[in-house]
Amino acid sequence: MTHLIDINCDMGESYGAYIIGNDEKIMPLVSSTNIACGFHGGDPVVMEQTIRLALAHGVRIGAHPGYPDLAGFGRRRITMKSAELKAAVKYQVSALSGMARSLGGKVEYVKPHGALYNTSSEDENECRVVAEAIVEIDPNLHFMGLANSLMQGIAKEHGLNFIAEGFADRRYEPNGQLMSRAKPGAVIMEADVAMEQVLQMVLKGTVTTSDGTELPLRPDSICIHGDNPSAEHILQSLKSEFKAHKITMGR
Amino acid sequence: MTHLIDINCDMGESYGAYIIGNDEKIMPLVSSTNIACGFHGGDPVVMEQTIRLALAHGVRIGAHPGYPDLAGFGRRRITMKSAELKAAVKYQVSALSGMARSLGGKVEYVKPHGALYNTSSEDENECRVVAEAIVEIDPNLHFMGLANSLMQGIAKEHGLNFIAEGFADRRYEPNGQLMSRAKPGAVIMEADVAMEQVLQMVLKGTVTTSDGTELPLRPDSICIHGDNPSAEHILQSLKSEFKAHKITMGR
Amino acid sequence: MTHLIDINCDMGESYGAYIIGNDEKIMPLVSSTNIACGFHGGDPVVMEQTIRLALAHGVRIGAHPGYPDLAGFGRRRITMKSAELKAAVKYQVSALSGMARSLGGKVEYVKPHGALYNTSSEDENECRVVAEAIVEIDPNLHFMGLANSLMQGIAKEHGLNFIAEGFADRRYEPNGQLMSRAKPGAVIMEADVAMEQVLQMVLKGTVTTSDGTELPLRPDSICIHGDNPSAEHILQSLKSEFKAHKITMGR
Amino acid sequence: MTHLIDINCDMGESYGAYIIGNDEKIMPLVSSTNIACGFHGGDPVVMEQTIRLALAHGVRIGAHPGYPDLAGFGRRRITMKSAELKAAVKYQVSALSGMARSLGGKVEYVKPHGALYNTSSEDENECRVVAEAIVEIDPNLHFMGLANSLMQGIAKEHGLNFIAEGFADRRYEPNGQLMSRAKPGAVIMEADVAMEQVLQMVLKGTVTTSDGTELPLRPDSICIHGDNPSAEHILQSLKSEFKAHKITMGR
Repeated sequence: MTHLIDINCDMGESYGAYIIGNDEKIMPLVSSTNIACGFHGGDPVVMEQTIRLALAHGVRIGAHPGYPDLAGFGRRRITMKSAELKAAVKYQVSALSGMARSLGGKVEYVKPHGALYNTSSEDENECRVVAEAIVEIDPNLHFMGLANSLMQGIAKEHGLNFIAEGFADRRYEPNGQLMSRAKPGAVIMEADVAMEQVLQMVLKGTVTTSDGTELPLRPDSICIHGDNPSAEHILQSLKSEFKAHKITMGR
Repeated sequence: MTHLIDINCDMGESYGAYIIGNDEKIMPLVSSTNIACGFHGGDPVVMEQTIRLALAHGVRIGAHPGYPDLAGFGRRRITMKSAELKAAVKYQVSALSGMARSLGGKVEYVKPHGALYNTSSEDENECRVVAEAIVEIDPNLHFMGLANSLMQGIAKEHGLNFIAEGFADRRYEPNGQLMSRAKPGAVIMEADVAMEQVLQMVLKGTVTTSDGTELPLRPDSICIHGDNPSAEHILQSLKSEFKAHKITMGR
Repeated sequence: MTHLIDINCDMGESYGAYIIGNDEKIMPLVSSTNIACGFHGGDPVVMEQTIRLALAHGVRIGAHPGYPDLAGFGRRRITMKSAELKAAVKYQVSALSGMARSLGGKVEYVKPHGALYNTSSEDENECRVVAEAIVEIDPNLHFMGLANSLMQGIAKEHGLNFIAEGFADRRYEPNGQLMSRAKPGAVIMEADVAMEQVLQMVLKGTVTTSDGTELPLRPDSICIHGDNPSAEHILQSLKSEFKAHKITMGR
Repeated sequence: MTHLIDINCDMGESYGAYIIGNDEKIMPLVSSTNIACGFHGGDPVVMEQTIRLALAHGVRIGAHPGYPDLAGFGRRRITMKSAELKAAVKYQVSALSGMARSLGGKVEYVKPHGALYNTSSEDENECRVVAEAIVEIDPNLHFMGLANSLMQGIAKEHGLNFIAEGFADRRYEPNGQLMSRAKPGAVIMEADVAMEQVLQMVLKGTVTTSDGTELPLRPDSICIHGDNPSAEHILQSLKSEFKAHKITMGR
């Protein structure tokens, strides 16, 4: 028996002279890439480069819209009105989609970024707005979001395929939520610990939370954060472990 | 014998709490609308509202990309690298196109805004970059630009249909260029003077420049600036004059 | 016996080509002006113009810092970290102060804008951060905030003089808070109703809330919103009523 | 005989999650620091951190204002009107000055950044606007600019002390201008070549340009670019060479 697991990574978050992540090194090691759309990171040149890189490596392209907050890298909640948020998500996904199409590619899914991701995983209204935005742009887009969260139900309600996501390099709270980045230990830096967490999700369908509880978690895709300085190392380690455990990266 | 002339107007330039123009009043009076794409003006909510308004009135939708300069309303030149400018135009056109499609509409042409318009009408390189951006997004898009300028030739070179534009409310220099907004008298405020200029273009195929010279000018479309406080009045006057002269607005 | 009351108005909120308010008409009618500092509105040119206008009319200058959110006009909460918010307030107040000094003027107080005002009037932490920012810039600056709110206590804690503010054109909730702008009736448009509210505050030291309750409210300063289309009319009416009731505008 | 030379470096150019430069390592190795003011780089938190770092190491603080162009890192010219540019410079210098004062420090000079530096060194009008802005904020501020350029004369005209600057890591054109960053070889990456250039300026008062010509150049201060990946290495090398040649860093 073999396992199939998608690996996704946030990319295209550089902005002008400002570089974040190591996209050239990371792209060959993942099967899906969430590309920033210019609001929390990314600029039009970076977006094009990242699309090209994804196409060169046969990596699935997702849009990664966020709150309009470059200064906060999309990690601060902004209390936008529903109409504002919906239009902002549509704008970002449209911009990336058009650029991808112009380069022979295609946006296949949407994954909210940062604070928008967190809010959407906890607040039904915010999540519904994101889902509506996706449906209005293209009902064939998939919605990538937090496994075991309210996102899944809302995606289905809107007729969207849901890609349940687990995290390699983030610690989980006992309630299944991601531990806030504000807390120490929220981001897993050690490649072997991250790898263990991934293997447990793929092989056992569970995750061990911050207090030692083992929760069911069977993701369709696993996220490695591109701005984690250990990202490349974690991905390289995963590659050989996957071989050893007959796990295939992809979908 | 009847004449057919397209009337276009820049719209969707409001931004958040900041209102520019009077789009609800103007939209029923034009046949084409150039919608700002968020860089020099416009925000995602405004873009959606303007698209809806255009669809409600059967008005042709054009994208109106500009330099990334909200503070300068896109009226200041920024010396962007070609790759930056091309990607910026593609981003803006894509964003508007996707939003238009989601509302059942379609972007049919691209008209550069403000300083980008001026630069493109004078600088071959800048114009070529805009043309390439349009072709890459969709070679069926038309390129709207200054009649009798280098824009026309460059559009054709790139296989794009060109919409030659004349201005109702801007004065022309003897060389056929638009008089710079920095000069007094550059913007025509009197509805009857603007109307005369339009009728002369449509019926005689000429324009009288700032020094009294009469130059040939046979535009496909005539621009009224939505932020001209007399815009509505000019358009209302045109409507009745058009009737008197058997001129039909449209294309 | 005569009464003395300060009248303040938010000004300098225009941005580039985008005009908000009617500062030239309003300035002669108030005794204090809260000048936007470029984050929620205002740009450096507008700031200078507004400072000059205030100096020409002998109007007291206050800094009006907000969240960094031009698109939302500072009316959306952003969950900034304390260090981010404190530095952002210091930056804005410093920018305005330096420009005022260069023109022979002086910033005398700080009034938070929009969502930052609301949050500071309800959330002790947010308010403390604002107070700390003010103290660090200049402990002689006064803190203008909502009368009868926690702002007053926190200002005193930090050794800052507090200017208790009442609103002419906003409805009060029975708990003494301002009614949210999201609710109908929150903004008073009728000049006579606004004027009654002001006179009641000045002469009786009370306000009648949305459910008819009469609460004590004895403000040091009364705010008229410059973006209220009736602002000029309200202020003109106040002027003659003040004369009739022997109320002097000023401090 | 000993030589005294100031070493300056652009710092505080990080922005939110985006890190540029290595300020903690560089600060102890320089005698002056040009701190970005939020328009081309820098944010209020970064500005405070950089001021604190400068104070901790006894480094002289300069304001480093640029065009409002975070996306272009201030390296693209924007054709701002004089009033816009003057107000923008005043805003930036004021913001940094107020924050420096609040931390017990003081801005002592102004050095324009990037495209604004280049334009000011070639275009009298642009330079005059910068000089006027500085005078209006504080006539005791010094103006740091390109040695042997028109900046010096214009600074004197305005009664400003001029700090003539040479570059360690930039190649000079035969006409004494800096080679544009767009040209290959414009930035010197090799520490020993940069060091040679510095020693020649300090000891001989000359620089060897791209075509081998030796031009007189006797700077008051020498700039090392903080975003040059070799910056730390160049500065460490200079330190030991300075000792060997009895050159003291400072002013």
